Amino acid sequence: MTLIDAFNPELDLALERVVPTPRRLVWKAWTDPDTLVKWFCPRPWEAVHCEIDLWPGGKFATVMRSPEGIEVTGTHCYLLVEPDSRLVWTSALTVGFRPHAQPTSDTDFVFTADLTFAEEAGGTRYRAHVMHASAKARQRHEDMGFHDGWNTAFDQLVEAMAGQV
Amino acid sequence: MTLIDAFNPELDLALERVVPTPRRLVWKAWTDPDTLVKWFCPRPWEAVHCEIDLWPGGKFATVMRSPEGIEVTGTHCYLLVEPDSRLVWTSALTVGFRPHAQPTSDTDFVFTADLTFAEEAGGTRYRAHVMHASAKARQRHEDMGFHDGWNTAFDQLVEAMAGQV
Repeated sequence: MTLIDAFNPELDLALERVVPTPRRLVWKAWTDPDTLVKWFCPRPWEAVHCEIDLWPGGKFATVMRSPEGIEVTGTHCYLLVEPDSRLVWTSALTVGFRPHAQPTSDTDFVFTADLTFAEEAGGTRYRAHVMHASAKARQRHEDMGFHDGWNTAFDQLVEAMAGQV
Repeated sequence: MTLIDAFNPELDLALERVVPTPRRLVWKAWTDPDTLVKWFCPRPWEAVHCEIDLWPGGKFATVMRSPEGIEVTGTHCYLLVEPDSRLVWTSALTVGFRPHAQPTSDTDFVFTADLTFAEEAGGTRYRAHVMHASAKARQRHEDMGFHDGWNTAFDQLVEAMAGQV
């Protein structure tokens, strides 16, 4: 009953990868705060804080720091938590499903990330479906470097979990 | 694990009622489209259309019509569906958890409704906790007639279900 919304090329961005990392470790990397900080930010940025309350309505918060010391806080709300297989969260809501104050900058945007993890060939097929409200928001996210950023971070995840197999 | 977020008087509105209507009928009134249209709009407005896909990520859409024929469409997304006991939906997201295009009018606002239904004294304790992103949005909703509107609609629900006990 928790269908995956169809990909809409005008509004969505996506990333799909098959990696040798076992699915339970990809899940752990996304849901354990101490593990998430190891890979979440494309270097030389780093994640310096992560809070995870892993239930629908729970908080997913990160603080990312640039090499110059600029900190960027992200606060999101989990929507679906299906252990090992699916994780959906959004920046449109904050803890307890409360609507988030809207971005005040024209360069900001809100999005919902629908992440799915499937076992494949001893590893994992990972799919990130990132949904926006408008073509403009989608374009901003792409221009900000969505493809390079999410791919690089996921490479770092694979690297971080390689020692834990 | 699906905690009710604490009531925040600066951001929230609430309605709490104890009525003789059995809980299963209050649930039905909120989740069956043919039943919902009977009570959802304070008269003389009426609900002329209702779509309900009752799962997290599913659509909750209504069309309300004024006596002059003005139609107002609302499209929301269900977040939590706990049969007979709790129903959470938001106007911040649309079907599949996609962020909703933001209101373009200063008089608009987004909100999340967290509805709980508890059995009490042969009837139901109904609580509607309505969350906003800002004090301004809360005030707009109150000025629009939140208390009178939600109370009147709920009176209509009790009346509509009285024949079904």
